[in-house]
Amino acid sequence: MKFLDFFRSLNPGSAATAKERLQIIIAHERRRVQTPNYLPLMQREILAVVRKYVPISEDQIKLNIDRRGELEVLELNISLTEPPLEP
Amino acid sequence: MKFLDFFRSLNPGSAATAKERLQIIIAHERRRVQTPNYLPLMQREILAVVRKYVPISEDQIKLNIDRRGELEVLELNISLTEPPLEP
Repeated sequence: MKFLDFFRSLNPGSAATAKERLQIIIAHERRRVQTPNYLPLMQREILAVVRKYVPISEDQIKLNIDRRGELEVLELNISLTEPPLEP
Repeated sequence: MKFLDFFRSLNPGSAATAKERLQIIIAHERRRVQTPNYLPLMQREILAVVRKYVPISEDQIKLNIDRRGELEVLELNISLTEPPLEP
């Protein structure tokens, strides 16, 4: 499972890599396959919510989808550009 | 870390516990404390998006917040009521 690996990959000593990071994970367990899979649509809307708070371009987002039987895990890894330092 | 423990707690042999489950995790790493913390507001809006797809009452939601230095992890565990079987 990749949860928090995104953050662990950070090099704390390097000022050049000083960025804000945001990880959103949505895991959905469907006990019946007949249940409609709303995850892709929901993920798009959730991303729209995130964009209201932080400006994100497409290349800042890494999307992973993992399916294991009844469990579907959707993972959004977002690297946010550091805002400029105030004088 | 509690990721997927929510699902591991499931007893697969019991029909009475047959429910859909949804887990949403938002992890945010702030490199500077000055950055506004938009996570609580964002979480509320994300929950509103989820509610467009699945009817969720307050007692179906378990919310955990975990802070470790620069990393804040917000965890929403949702047990969805099983829809009735079609005849």
